[in-house]
Amino acid sequence: MKGQPITAGIPEPYEAISDTYDRLAVWACEHWGESPRYKMAAFLEKVWSDHPAPVHSVLEVCCGTGLMLEQLVRRGYAVSGLDRSGPMLARARTRLGSDVPLVRSELPEIPGDQQYDAVICAAAALNYMPDEQTLQRTFEAVARTVRPGGSFVFDILAHRMVADRFGTSVWADDLGDLAFIWKFQNHPGQSHTDLDYTQFLRDGDGPDTYTVVRETHRLFALDRETVRELARRAGFTDIAVYDNYSFEPADGATDYETWTLTRGQATDPPR
Amino acid sequence: MKGQPITAGIPEPYEAISDTYDRLAVWACEHWGESPRYKMAAFLEKVWSDHPAPVHSVLEVCCGTGLMLEQLVRRGYAVSGLDRSGPMLARARTRLGSDVPLVRSELPEIPGDQQYDAVICAAAALNYMPDEQTLQRTFEAVARTVRPGGSFVFDILAHRMVADRFGTSVWADDLGDLAFIWKFQNHPGQSHTDLDYTQFLRDGDGPDTYTVVRETHRLFALDRETVRELARRAGFTDIAVYDNYSFEPADGATDYETWTLTRGQATDPPR
Repeated sequence: MKGQPITAGIPEPYEAISDTYDRLAVWACEHWGESPRYKMAAFLEKVWSDHPAPVHSVLEVCCGTGLMLEQLVRRGYAVSGLDRSGPMLARARTRLGSDVPLVRSELPEIPGDQQYDAVICAAAALNYMPDEQTLQRTFEAVARTVRPGGSFVFDILAHRMVADRFGTSVWADDLGDLAFIWKFQNHPGQSHTDLDYTQFLRDGDGPDTYTVVRETHRLFALDRETVRELARRAGFTDIAVYDNYSFEPADGATDYETWTLTRGQATDPPR
Repeated sequence: MKGQPITAGIPEPYEAISDTYDRLAVWACEHWGESPRYKMAAFLEKVWSDHPAPVHSVLEVCCGTGLMLEQLVRRGYAVSGLDRSGPMLARARTRLGSDVPLVRSELPEIPGDQQYDAVICAAAALNYMPDEQTLQRTFEAVARTVRPGGSFVFDILAHRMVADRFGTSVWADDLGDLAFIWKFQNHPGQSHTDLDYTQFLRDGDGPDTYTVVRETHRLFALDRETVRELARRAGFTDIAVYDNYSFEPADGATDYETWTLTRGQATDPPR
């Protein structure tokens, strides 16, 4: 995403870890309490089945390696994907085959003028937005991309998760051929946390030789009321916030917020 | 130490990490609250200055790379060291020069019949003792090695530290050329915790290539009253337990126990 820190010698987020992302995603579910993709997909299906018009076509922005799209393909949806990272999209292409439209683009840009019954954005991608303006423009781009009355579902880390809970903690694991360290660097008085990621992946050369890659991910804390107001301004209605892909309303103890919105019928969103 | 688990392909504790032990020791002080060696040495000097007979000769059992002995040499003591690990002793030799007697031996064996004014055992080495019998025999060996009226000081991790606090936590850091992961595996209902250590050390071959080593350290929880009784039976008197190299008495919140003892004058310890 735009606004990520440029650190000498450290690749863009998700460039280096595209090879291991799927394993990290499983690990994040087990250790961080993220929802697995099948739970996300079941939630989406329930949301969409409650909509007045049926949902068939779905665009996922920030689709990564296509874990979510794969779940939706299995459920019969006509999916498309968008992501900033070429290596991540290459993984998605391998996973999904040649028929699924995949576009490389960086939010808030969503190229083309096609409209979908639903747009989704999962796995805290919007926490990478560096400022309100970029988030506002992203909401507007999504509003143009989803048909009037269509559905938009996204998840974000709760404000307290980014600002407080991560603190300066360290998460690490040694899985044998893959080992990694996540260091969370909270900046007091600032609204973001940097995740310094170090990964060791075993080489083909020998059992004891590993190659390192490092990335920094900068996550921004998003205030619930601000997000709601920006979504409203972009033309979304029926805005609800749930706890981590359940239908329990989000509250002060929520770590993962799942947002469901409907694009209003009345007017075109701002361009 | 005896009783360490033999795991295929995993070296004995301290064999693999002798090269990095000194840096890990600094890290443990910063992140785990262990006392730095200079604080330990200042504590020892105070304990010894309160003894009726002056302390000049000191044996450290489990001396490792000689960090503690170095502090004592600087303060003018005549030091000797004993350790089980050849690689660790090789580091100590480099640090201390050729004049300091260093012996390779595994507790409870302390070879020779020399006696010292004081014996020390630092950095939780006694938590590696697999059972009461080995600890008892170690105390007896130390009692034979310290002169009547001489001083014995050791530290151990408090019972709750091993049994509860470590839990299944993970500690890790990426220091650039060195990265490591400590995984604590607590075994419910058992009196020990396994520390699975994974280390990546940068090769000379390239900036991104690292060599892995892994070790498992099995730490046993030691009950304060049991330790006190075993020390008494070995002939020690004036037994006191302090909080982490301070002169505050240990209490229920103590993580690191520092024990000070005096070898009784009356009788020879059991052999």
